Amino acid sequence: MQEIIQSLKFDSSGLIPAIAQDAATGEILMVAWMNAEALARTLESGEAVYWSRSRKKLWHKGEESGNVQKVKQVRADCDRDVLLIKVEQVGGAACHTGYRSCFSWVLKGGAWAEDGVKVFDPGEKYRK
Amino acid sequence: MQEIIQSLKFDSSGLIPAIAQDAATGEILMVAWMNAEALARTLESGEAVYWSRSRKKLWHKGEESGNVQKVKQVRADCDRDVLLIKVEQVGGAACHTGYRSCFSWVLKGGAWAEDGVKVFDPGEKYRK
Repeated sequence: MQEIIQSLKFDSSGLIPAIAQDAATGEILMVAWMNAEALARTLESGEAVYWSRSRKKLWHKGEESGNVQKVKQVRADCDRDVLLIKVEQVGGAACHTGYRSCFSWVLKGGAWAEDGVKVFDPGEKYRK
Repeated sequence: MQEIIQSLKFDSSGLIPAIAQDAATGEILMVAWMNAEALARTLESGEAVYWSRSRKKLWHKGEESGNVQKVKQVRADCDRDVLLIKVEQVGGAACHTGYRSCFSWVLKGGAWAEDGVKVFDPGEKYRK
């Protein structure tokens, strides 16, 4: 475990970007960040754990929504400064907006247009 | 153009990560960085232009190898802090190592193993 972590190039904040890709369809679901501990927990648990830069704490993806990401494969790029995690997205949606993918915005005619599959209503999902 | 650039969140270095994905197969080819000018040139030219953090200059991908990336679609995530560029990879290889994808390393039994399609021999391609 330590060897894997040491083989990677974390940035000056101790973070490395991780792309979550749907293992079955190849769709890119989201990009988040991992520190060494997040990666260690991901590898140990088999579920994606990120570092939330806004909340400044470990973020077990799906801890609130139930939409965890089961890790099927972990890949790295030639520079060892980006991770690619192939996952099974439980619940079918990676994005807190309810879209299957966070990349549900496409450039069309010089502006961003919504273009994604809505899986849930975030107002319903996260209501208190 | 200016509106698109202003809608994005560049980091404190003025950069945004851009994932290049094969438009036809969904394979993730590489991740690089763009500043505002790189993105503007990408949108104007229809070919991917990045900011090289190591060389500290604009990098028209393929300028040396001929393996340019023809942009088919530009997507953004919900936070507007990551770009996803769907491309046609001319020459079939995005990675300077000769692999089709930079993500040609997979975690297997606790270590990184090579797992990619080699398209060219970098010694041949970049010889002077």
